[in-house]
Amino acid sequence: MPVATLNMIRLDRRLRASLQSQLYRQLRELIISGKLQTGIRLPSTRDLVGQLDVSRNTIVYALDRLIGEGYLNSRIGSGIYVADLQQPTPGNRTQSAPRSVPEQVQTSRRTVATANASISPTYSTSRVRPFRPCQPAVDHFPLRTWNRARSYALRSQSNDMLREGDAAGLLRLRRALAVYLQDARGVRCDAEQIVITAGAQQALSLVATSLTDPHDRVWIEDPGYLGARAAFLAARVNLIPIRIDNEGICIPSTRKSPRVIYCTPSRQFPLGTTMTLARRLALLEFARKNDCWIVEDDYDSEFRYVERPLPALQGLTGHDRVLYAGSFSKVLFPSLRLGYLVVPEGLVEVFRKAKEIGDAGCATIDQATAAIFVEEGFFSTHVRRMRKLYRERRDVFLETSSRLLSGWMKFPDIDAGMDATGWLQSNASDARISRELAASGVDVPPVSAYSLKTSPPGLVFGFTAFSPAQLRSALKAVAATMKL
Amino acid sequence: MPVATLNMIRLDRRLRASLQSQLYRQLRELIISGKLQTGIRLPSTRDLVGQLDVSRNTIVYALDRLIGEGYLNSRIGSGIYVADLQQPTPGNRTQSAPRSVPEQVQTSRRTVATANASISPTYSTSRVRPFRPCQPAVDHFPLRTWNRARSYALRSQSNDMLREGDAAGLLRLRRALAVYLQDARGVRCDAEQIVITAGAQQALSLVATSLTDPHDRVWIEDPGYLGARAAFLAARVNLIPIRIDNEGICIPSTRKSPRVIYCTPSRQFPLGTTMTLARRLALLEFARKNDCWIVEDDYDSEFRYVERPLPALQGLTGHDRVLYAGSFSKVLFPSLRLGYLVVPEGLVEVFRKAKEIGDAGCATIDQATAAIFVEEGFFSTHVRRMRKLYRERRDVFLETSSRLLSGWMKFPDIDAGMDATGWLQSNASDARISRELAASGVDVPPVSAYSLKTSPPGLVFGFTAFSPAQLRSALKAVAATMKL
Repeated sequence: MPVATLNMIRLDRRLRASLQSQLYRQLRELIISGKLQTGIRLPSTRDLVGQLDVSRNTIVYALDRLIGEGYLNSRIGSGIYVADLQQPTPGNRTQSAPRSVPEQVQTSRRTVATANASISPTYSTSRVRPFRPCQPAVDHFPLRTWNRARSYALRSQSNDMLREGDAAGLLRLRRALAVYLQDARGVRCDAEQIVITAGAQQALSLVATSLTDPHDRVWIEDPGYLGARAAFLAARVNLIPIRIDNEGICIPSTRKSPRVIYCTPSRQFPLGTTMTLARRLALLEFARKNDCWIVEDDYDSEFRYVERPLPALQGLTGHDRVLYAGSFSKVLFPSLRLGYLVVPEGLVEVFRKAKEIGDAGCATIDQATAAIFVEEGFFSTHVRRMRKLYRERRDVFLETSSRLLSGWMKFPDIDAGMDATGWLQSNASDARISRELAASGVDVPPVSAYSLKTSPPGLVFGFTAFSPAQLRSALKAVAATMKL
Repeated sequence: MPVATLNMIRLDRRLRASLQSQLYRQLRELIISGKLQTGIRLPSTRDLVGQLDVSRNTIVYALDRLIGEGYLNSRIGSGIYVADLQQPTPGNRTQSAPRSVPEQVQTSRRTVATANASISPTYSTSRVRPFRPCQPAVDHFPLRTWNRARSYALRSQSNDMLREGDAAGLLRLRRALAVYLQDARGVRCDAEQIVITAGAQQALSLVATSLTDPHDRVWIEDPGYLGARAAFLAARVNLIPIRIDNEGICIPSTRKSPRVIYCTPSRQFPLGTTMTLARRLALLEFARKNDCWIVEDDYDSEFRYVERPLPALQGLTGHDRVLYAGSFSKVLFPSLRLGYLVVPEGLVEVFRKAKEIGDAGCATIDQATAAIFVEEGFFSTHVRRMRKLYRERRDVFLETSSRLLSGWMKFPDIDAGMDATGWLQSNASDARISRELAASGVDVPPVSAYSLKTSPPGLVFGFTAFSPAQLRSALKAVAATMKL
């Protein structure tokens, strides 16, 4: 057998990787690619020292490793040879470039559905610019208090807190949450019915994947929340858009009954209407009669600026049909990724399993910190402070927009929540206007982005994450771009 | 209309909830349940003050709230009446007890599959007792260093870190990981190919739900890792158990090709064999020819006690067919819930979407802390320290078990990993013995718990989370229980 020429090897002392590691990788690549063929003999160590201008140790290290891994064989007294790697078609290997997309990719229907779903409108930048909806004022979050609560949580039982925890969530947090949800939202549940999730998005995703089979009918508010729509689309259900009127979701009388009904009773996203009590009771009755589940997404009801909110749909009788989803992301901070799902007793075991299989549970230290935050009242205090701040920002937004945008856009009252949907007073395309405004630095997703059917043209303005000065200047930019 | 008698109302000053809140809830319950019928008039406020022995304010507050929410109507000058709630069948409502399981629950096939899967063997206690497998020594985790890295991460750009982040993961962590995986494991990838997941379990779950459709064929090592099995079972695939020999997974020649092949090449779980280079190349070739995906679960290859490990399967050519899953949970601490999935370029967009829809991304602060840990070398230092610690514990375990359990149980060499599978030297039922030992305080799951087909009887011993003294005393307990 001939001796291999290794003049294609290039070692570079300026690189981060050590010379031995560079040599090892380049030799391995040459063997795998078939450029160094099975059976070919390598130059002697002494020759390699000369050829490559490196120390003997460097070479011995690289060759030893390749021998250990089966790429090279060492025959005592006769040298080192490229091993037989039992490649069925070594010739083809050189053709498959590293990291290329497979030429023919088997694509499952689920893969296609996942790739085509999206949980939010498309923004031109990841930067949070006015008026991106659903953004809390993170610069007002009491991070020091949060860090103190975290230290306190860790001080007591740090080793236990590092071990794997209950997949359904830290019991202490679920207990604190059960009390809070009863007091603040009229939700009736035991701690055992709560699953702590990675934000409300995971709650919706667990519902979609655990309750439905492909092709099941699911009713969804239209226009409606994209995170829910994406979760159900990825689960490949038959998604049926349901109209909203000023009492809430309109129960169709002629439709075949669905397996799941998704709704936002406290404040419809993005229209802002609150579902009336009569409509709530009718919906519960429908679900009972037709044997379907209601998913109540209570995504920002903490921020109510006028009277007290209606208690949650879940708290009405018949809540053995309701799954209640909520989030800490908006009330505390989005990157915390903590939310919750309250399920009927009959589904406790299914959702514990779904969460366990999905990711084995949320990070314990964050859960313990959140529990202390709720127990010690920091949570309520922060909600109160933000409610006041957001009310002021709402007032600035409404006052300025009515001054600058009147005639062009009409806003309803904003009794609650983090954003305001304004209606265009013409039949212009809201998608086109949204693109024009994005080009001028203002993010206002069009209502059509949230709709499966046609909807009246409108734009969604988030006002909570921006100071009065930012709100005013961004509204001026809107008026200027629209030549108002 | 008659006046309602409210003698069933009981207000208790010792309860946490305020009197007005108690009154509000009890009245609401009476109305919803139909015990206070539509149209019935409530006693006057003055009468209620007398009947209930509370202040007028308490009563006014509760009634106002119920009027606001639509449960009561107030007619000026004539009193307060129970509203018509438009209940289609109010009589039935009293029968549905709160929090009852629905009488007839529509159960999807996915719900049943989820409820029946499990990611780990059943333990009698949640406490970590010897020899529970796959448990790192959390009492040796440098929590102070971790906390300092966290403070450092927060100091630089805390507001940005509180906002929602990239669903695929913090770029800084993905960059650090790409370098680490290349150096330590021979994985070839760009940061863009990495999705940060909530532990390896989420990586497996995303693979199962995003790559497969129900009834797709999936090959899985048998015996094999339960977390993977559960993820695929919940996705309702056709799971085909594949035999392991001492070279790794045995590629069947007569089978129809699968969509996904799940394997643990670095160290087969729970058998401990390393897949040979020849078998790896054959597997890659099979995947290329038959157009299927390989999932490489590299769950504990950091802990190798003898020679250097074989580099990852993903690093061989043909890795455009390989999805590589790993975890920080074992190397740092389990409750952190951080792991990663490296996907071929052709799947980057699908898995970014899958993660976004699943939970919108992992907690940013933990990701930033982990990035600093890797960048600054704390990670490598900790791995080195644990490798040394675990090697010592392995030696104690093997020495003591060969002294106390010889003849009854045989252990192969333990070159790597966190647990040792011992083989019973009789044909006894490993499940029965495991139950007996659990009753004596020792957790050793049986090999049969990890098998879909029959397997030789064995027990899986985790040795990493327990001190030499604990290991010795637990092995003595095993010997005593088994009367050796």
